[in-house]
Amino acid sequence: MNQSLTDAEVQTLDVHWRAANYLAVGQIYLLDNPLLREPLRAEHVKPRLLGHWGTSPGLNLVHTHLNRLIRARDLDAICIWGPGHGGPAVLANSWLEGSYSAAYPDITRDEEGMRKLFRQFSFPGGVPSHVAPETPGSIHEGGELGYSLAHAYGAAFDNPGLLVACVIGDGEAETGPLAGSWHANKFLDPVHDGAVLPILHLNGYKIANPTVLSRIPEDELDQLLRGYGHEPIHVTGDDPVAVHRAMAAAMDQAVDRITAAQRAAREEGAVERPRWPMIVLRTPKGWTGPDKVDGLQVEGTWRAHQVPLDGIHTNPEHLAQLEAWLRSYRPEELFDESGRPRAEVLVHVPEGERRLGANPHANGGLLLRELPVRELERFAVPVDKPGATMHEPTRILGELLEQVMADTAGRRDFRLVGPDETASNRLQAVYQATGKAWQAQVLPVDENLARDGRVVEVLSEHLCQGWLEGYLLTGRHGLFSCYEAFVHIVDSMVNQHIKWLRTTRQIPWRAPIASLNYLLTSHVWRQDHNGFSHQDPGFVDHVLNKSPEVVRVYLPPDANTLLSVGEHVLRSRDYVNVVVAGKQPCFDWLSLDQARVHCARGAGIWEWAGTEDGSRDPDVVLACAGDVPTMEVMAAAQLLRELLPQLAVRVINVVDLARLMPADEHPHGMKDKEFDSLFTPDKPVIFAYHGYPWLIHRLAYRRTNHDQLHVRGYKESGTTTTPFDMVVRNDLDRYRLVMDVIDRVPGLSVRAAGVRQQMADVRARHHDWIRAHGTDLPEVADWTWNG
Amino acid sequence: MNQSLTDAEVQTLDVHWRAANYLAVGQIYLLDNPLLREPLRAEHVKPRLLGHWGTSPGLNLVHTHLNRLIRARDLDAICIWGPGHGGPAVLANSWLEGSYSAAYPDITRDEEGMRKLFRQFSFPGGVPSHVAPETPGSIHEGGELGYSLAHAYGAAFDNPGLLVACVIGDGEAETGPLAGSWHANKFLDPVHDGAVLPILHLNGYKIANPTVLSRIPEDELDQLLRGYGHEPIHVTGDDPVAVHRAMAAAMDQAVDRITAAQRAAREEGAVERPRWPMIVLRTPKGWTGPDKVDGLQVEGTWRAHQVPLDGIHTNPEHLAQLEAWLRSYRPEELFDESGRPRAEVLVHVPEGERRLGANPHANGGLLLRELPVRELERFAVPVDKPGATMHEPTRILGELLEQVMADTAGRRDFRLVGPDETASNRLQAVYQATGKAWQAQVLPVDENLARDGRVVEVLSEHLCQGWLEGYLLTGRHGLFSCYEAFVHIVDSMVNQHIKWLRTTRQIPWRAPIASLNYLLTSHVWRQDHNGFSHQDPGFVDHVLNKSPEVVRVYLPPDANTLLSVGEHVLRSRDYVNVVVAGKQPCFDWLSLDQARVHCARGAGIWEWAGTEDGSRDPDVVLACAGDVPTMEVMAAAQLLRELLPQLAVRVINVVDLARLMPADEHPHGMKDKEFDSLFTPDKPVIFAYHGYPWLIHRLAYRRTNHDQLHVRGYKESGTTTTPFDMVVRNDLDRYRLVMDVIDRVPGLSVRAAGVRQQMADVRARHHDWIRAHGTDLPEVADWTWNG
Repeated sequence: MNQSLTDAEVQTLDVHWRAANYLAVGQIYLLDNPLLREPLRAEHVKPRLLGHWGTSPGLNLVHTHLNRLIRARDLDAICIWGPGHGGPAVLANSWLEGSYSAAYPDITRDEEGMRKLFRQFSFPGGVPSHVAPETPGSIHEGGELGYSLAHAYGAAFDNPGLLVACVIGDGEAETGPLAGSWHANKFLDPVHDGAVLPILHLNGYKIANPTVLSRIPEDELDQLLRGYGHEPIHVTGDDPVAVHRAMAAAMDQAVDRITAAQRAAREEGAVERPRWPMIVLRTPKGWTGPDKVDGLQVEGTWRAHQVPLDGIHTNPEHLAQLEAWLRSYRPEELFDESGRPRAEVLVHVPEGERRLGANPHANGGLLLRELPVRELERFAVPVDKPGATMHEPTRILGELLEQVMADTAGRRDFRLVGPDETASNRLQAVYQATGKAWQAQVLPVDENLARDGRVVEVLSEHLCQGWLEGYLLTGRHGLFSCYEAFVHIVDSMVNQHIKWLRTTRQIPWRAPIASLNYLLTSHVWRQDHNGFSHQDPGFVDHVLNKSPEVVRVYLPPDANTLLSVGEHVLRSRDYVNVVVAGKQPCFDWLSLDQARVHCARGAGIWEWAGTEDGSRDPDVVLACAGDVPTMEVMAAAQLLRELLPQLAVRVINVVDLARLMPADEHPHGMKDKEFDSLFTPDKPVIFAYHGYPWLIHRLAYRRTNHDQLHVRGYKESGTTTTPFDMVVRNDLDRYRLVMDVIDRVPGLSVRAAGVRQQMADVRARHHDWIRAHGTDLPEVADWTWNG
Repeated sequence: MNQSLTDAEVQTLDVHWRAANYLAVGQIYLLDNPLLREPLRAEHVKPRLLGHWGTSPGLNLVHTHLNRLIRARDLDAICIWGPGHGGPAVLANSWLEGSYSAAYPDITRDEEGMRKLFRQFSFPGGVPSHVAPETPGSIHEGGELGYSLAHAYGAAFDNPGLLVACVIGDGEAETGPLAGSWHANKFLDPVHDGAVLPILHLNGYKIANPTVLSRIPEDELDQLLRGYGHEPIHVTGDDPVAVHRAMAAAMDQAVDRITAAQRAAREEGAVERPRWPMIVLRTPKGWTGPDKVDGLQVEGTWRAHQVPLDGIHTNPEHLAQLEAWLRSYRPEELFDESGRPRAEVLVHVPEGERRLGANPHANGGLLLRELPVRELERFAVPVDKPGATMHEPTRILGELLEQVMADTAGRRDFRLVGPDETASNRLQAVYQATGKAWQAQVLPVDENLARDGRVVEVLSEHLCQGWLEGYLLTGRHGLFSCYEAFVHIVDSMVNQHIKWLRTTRQIPWRAPIASLNYLLTSHVWRQDHNGFSHQDPGFVDHVLNKSPEVVRVYLPPDANTLLSVGEHVLRSRDYVNVVVAGKQPCFDWLSLDQARVHCARGAGIWEWAGTEDGSRDPDVVLACAGDVPTMEVMAAAQLLRELLPQLAVRVINVVDLARLMPADEHPHGMKDKEFDSLFTPDKPVIFAYHGYPWLIHRLAYRRTNHDQLHVRGYKESGTTTTPFDMVVRNDLDRYRLVMDVIDRVPGLSVRAAGVRQQMADVRARHHDWIRAHGTDLPEVADWTWNG
C-alpha cells in the first residue's frame, strides 16, 4: 500500500487543505462576505477578534490526510484533537465533509451556512474556540491540555476494529499527564484493543515560548519516542507539496505497521509487545498565514498563536493583508457559486459514518448497551439484626464487580481502573473474572497479569481518569477506585468531564453515556499508617461546586447500602457519581431490602437506633453521613439510651448528600417541608459528617433549623494514629457527640451534667491509654451495638 | 577519582548499610529489646505493625553511598527521597549520622534513643512512615508520589554549589508529574544553578503490581533516559559486594561528569546543554529481608512492600523468622555496648552541616534573606478621585516584580514561575530585569530567552508548582502566576505543601520559609474567547478547607490594592497566599495610601461610594469581593444613587476573604461585633462575590445577620461571550443587583417598582443587543463612575 502519491492526488489533498484553511481563517475573522464575492471591508469583520490561527493549518493537514487514509482503506477511525484552540480547523473539516450540517441542520453546506459557521465562532451564544462537546466527532475538550493521549487509549481499549489517531501539540506535550501517557502502550492489547496512532505536532511554539520537544536535537527526540516504545516516522517541511507526499507516505506506513502488528498478535499468536508506529509532524506555526505583520516575523513563530492581524478595524494595511491572506487560498477554486465545496475538494472525504465527524464511537451513547448487573441478593450480606455482624463493604462490592466482569467477558465493555490499589481497596474478587492489563514483561512470580485483562492499574491517577473518560465517551462502562485523598490529583480533569456532560445535555445529537463512577476508599478516617498526608475528604466539596445536573455524592454506611448505591451508579447515565466507602470491617446496619429503601430515599430516620416514642418530637437529632461517623453516632445513641434514657433521640442517616440541598438547587434536594419533618424545625441537630463540617452548613444554610445545626467532621487534625484517636482528635467521637447533645438540649437534669463529666473522663483516659499502648481503649475496640 | 574501592572500603560501606537496614526493620517492628540483647519475644514487638520495608534497603544503599561521596569530595549535597514510605530508611540514616539526635535531643544516639526511635515510628503520637517535615534533611513529603524530581530542580536553581540527589521510585515514575519532570534539565543553567543527580530506583514493584520501567527492555529504558537528555549509568545486582562496587563507581562517575559539565560552562564558556548523568539502580524489593514467608516468595516481589512478616503475635514461626532476619545484620558488630554505632559504621559519614540530615539547604528558612521590595510609591498609579482612570492591575504589579528581579540580580533568590503565561498575564515588565530560563536551542526570532533567566515558563502547572516548592523550601522567594481555572491542576500538590507548612510550624528546629504565592489571573469573568472550560473560581474554596494557620486569600479590586497585597505576600512567611486579580483594564478606586489602609483592614466601608449620611444605619449593604464584582457593585450603587436617592446604601469591599470567618476559626477572622458593625445586624446584605456564592455563606453562616445575606457569584453559567454577558448570565450584573436591593429592602416607594422594571428592561435589551452585535451595550461598555 506504500506507493507514493500521484500529482493529481497531491492536488486534491492540497485543495482540501486550502479549503479547510480558508474556512479556519474565515471563522476567526468574518461576519459577512464569506466567499469574498466583494472586496473585504472592515464591516465584514467581527468587532472582537477572538480565536487561534497558529495550530489550525497543522490540524487541517492531519484531517485532510486522515480523510484520504480512511477512505482509501475503509478504516473505522476517530481522532483526538489535542492542541488547544483547535476549533476552527476541526469545525472547518466537519463542515466540509457534511457532518456539521447533519448535526446542525441550520448550518448548511452553502454560502448561507458558511456565513453562519463563521459568525458563530467565538461569538456570544456561538461555539467555543476549542474542540468541544459541540464539535461533531470529538470526545475531547481542547481547552485544558494534557489528556489527549490518555483519552485516545481509553477509546481504543476493547475496540479492536478502531483506529484512534491522536494529535498531540508540542505545548501539551510538556504537561505531566501527557508525558505520563506515552507509557499507556504497555496496557494496550493488540488482540482485543484497537490501535492508537499518536501524531506529535511540533509547530515550535506555545503562547509565547518555544516548546521543549521542538528544540531538542532530532536524534534526542527520536530516542525519547523509541524509549516510549514507539517507532517514530518523521515528517518535516514547509513546502506543501513535499509535506503532502511525506505525510501520506507516513500515514500509509503507520497503518501498514499497525495492521501487521495486529495480524501478528491476532493470527500468529505473537505475544511480544509491538513497537507501535507514531508520526512526528514538524511544520510552521501559522503556516500559510501572514509571513510578517508590521515588520515582525509571524509565520513560524509564537506571534501566529492567536489572531495574527488584529488591527483590521483601525489599520487599512491589516485589512488589506487579511484580504490577501484569504484570497491566497483561491476560494473561487474551492467553493462553487452557491458556496458548496467543489467536487475536487471532497475527493478524499469519506462517506457516512466513516467521516471523522460522524463516527458513532465519538458519540458513544449511540453504542452504549445496558450493563448487566445481577440481582443484588446474591451479593448481599444477611442482616437479621443491625450491628450484629461486620463486613468490609468494598470487598462485598468487589463480588458484584466480579460478576459484572464475568457477565461482560464477551462484550468487553466494562473496565475497572485504579492506581495500583484494587487489591488494597479489597476489590480483588474481580481477578476471578479477569486479569490486570499488562503488555510488558511478565515473570513467573507475578499474579493476575493478563494481556487481555480489563482491570487497568497504573500508578497515575491522571491516566486512570483519562482512560476511563475515553472509554465512557466511546460508549462503555467503568469504575475508578481511588484513595480518597489522592483523587484530588484529578480535580481539574473531573471539572472538565463535568463541564463536558453538562454541555452535552444541551446538545440534542449527543446520546447519553454511562456515568463516571468513583469509589473513594482508604478514606480520611482509616489512614492509620499513612497519616496526615493521606487525609483529605475534600473531593466531595470540589465536585459539589459543579453543575448539579451532573454531580451526585453517596456515602453508604455499610455493605448492603454500598451494594445498592453501586448498582444505581453503574446503571446511571451522564452523571459523575462519587461514592465514599470504607474498606475496613464495618458493622452491617441494614438488610438489603432496608438498604434499598434507605438509598432510594437518600436520607432517613433509623427508628430502631433512636429513642423516640412517636408521640412527640424528639429532644435532639443525631445525624450522620459516612461509615465512620455512622458508627460513632450509633455508639453515641447507645450511650444516651443507657445513660439518659428519658431523652428522646432521633437518629438520621444520610446516604445521598445532595438531599441536604434546597430542592431548587439540586435535583435530589429535599423540599423544606420534608427537611423540617426529618430534622425538626427547632430541635438541636448534632451532625457527624465524614468530611469537612462546613460543607454541611453550605448545603443546608437555608433550612429552617439551620441555627440549631451543629456539625462535627474532619478539621485537618490528622496524623499517624489509631482509628479511634483520629475521631477523638477531630471531635467526632461518640463521647464528644454525647457531650454535644448535653450541651445543646435545654433543660436537662443534673444527671446529665454527671454523664457529661463521665464522657470527658473517658476521653482523658483515651489519651493516656493510647500514649502508653499505641492501641485504642478496649471498650472502643470491642464495642458492639446492643440496640 | 574513578578508581575502584578497596576491600576495606567495601566492608565499611556494607557495615553502614547493614546498620541502616537493621534500624529500618527495628522501626517497623520493635517496641523494646532494640539491640536484641535477649531472645526476641512477642511482647517486644509492636501491637500494630505499620510500615513499609520494601523500599528501605535501596534507600539505605543510596544514603550510604551518598555519605561516602560527600565525605570523599567535601560536597554540599542534599537528597530528595522520592519513594513512598521511605521513612524507616531515612530516619535510620539520620540517627546513625547524629543529625536526628541534634534535632530531637530526646532521641539519643544510644540504646535508649534507639528504643525511642523504634517505638515512635508509625505509632500514635509518633512519626509518619514517609519522609516528612519531621525528618531532618528532608524537603519532600514521600506520601503523595510524583513530585520528587521537580522539587530537586527547584532546590538546585540558583544554588550553583549544591548537588541535589533525587531518588525516584519506579512506582512514582509512572505518575504524570514525574514523567513530565525529566525535561526540567532544559531549564537548568550549569553556570548559575546546581546539579541534579536523578537516581532511578527500579525495585520492580509497586503495592501490588510490577512497574512499567522495570519491565521494559533495558535498551528501551536506556533510550528513554537518553531521550530525556541524560547519560544513564546502570547499576544492577543483588550481591551486596558487587553492588557496592558498582554503586560507588557510578556515583564517582556521575559527579565527575557533573563537575566537568559545570567547569565547561563556567570556565570554558560552553553553551551546549550538557547531557547530565543519572543512575539507574536495579536491586530487589525488600533486599536482605525474608526470602520466603509461608512458602511464598517475598524478597524481590510486591509481597515485600509493607510488613513481610505480619503474624508475629500469633505465629511463632514468624517471630523466629523476624529474629533471624534482625540478627542477620549482626547488630553486635554494628553497635557498641551502649548502643552507639561503632566507629567502623561511621567511617564514611560526613561531619556537621555536610551530613544529609543537617544540610541547611534542607531547612531553607535558615538561609532565607529578606526580599528587597521597594517602596510602593514608585509603582502606584495616581488616584485623585475614584474611578477616573483605568489600569491593568497585573501590569502594575509586573513593574514591582521587575524591580524585585533587578534588586535580586546578584543574590538570585527570587523566581517567577508560570505555565507560558507571564506575558499573557501582563507581567512582561520582568523581562527588563531577567530573561526566561532556557537551555534548549535558541533561534534568532526568539525573545527574552536566557540561559540565566529567573522567569521559568513551561506548559506544566505541576512543574511550576514543584519547582517553586523546591525553591522556597531551600530558602528562597517566588511567585506562581497562573490561569485561575487551571491552578486546580495542582490542587493536590498545594494540599501537601499546606500540610507541610502546618506541620513545620510545630517543629521548633524548622525555620520559617517564604510563603508560596499564587497570582491567579485570566480569571473566570474574563475568558471571553476561552469560554466554559476556562471558567472555574473554585481554587479558593479548595484552599479555604485547609489549615487556617497557613492559608490566606486576597481579592484586590484594583491596581493599588494589588500592589499593597503583593508587597504583603512577598514579605510573608510560611503561608500559602492566593491572590486573585484581573489582567484586564480596571478602574482605579483607591490611592496607594487608601489601598494600604484598606488592605490592612482586609474589609471596609467605602463611604464615598455609598449614600449613608452617618445619622442612622443604612437601608441596605452592597458588599463585593473581586475586581469584576466590585465594578458591578459600584455601578449598582451609582444607579441607586441616581434612581432611588432616598435609599441609604452602604458599600463594603472585602479584600481579605478570611475576614468573613469567625475569629476563632481563622487568625484573620473578624470578631462578631466588628462584623455586625460593618454588615449591620439586621439589614439586607447583597454580596457580589468573585467565585461560587455559597462560599460566602460557608464563611459567614454563624454571623448575626446571616439570614439577610444574599450572595451573587459564579454559578457555572459559563460560555464564550462578552465580559458583561458573563455577569448577566450569572445574575451578578449591576441591574440584577439593583433588583436584588429593591426585592429585599422592605417598605420601598412605588417608584422603586418602576426602577425594578427599568432594570429588567435593560437586561432584556442586553440580550437582544448581544445577539445582534456580539458586543456589550454601549452604556455598559462606556460606563464610568461619576461619584
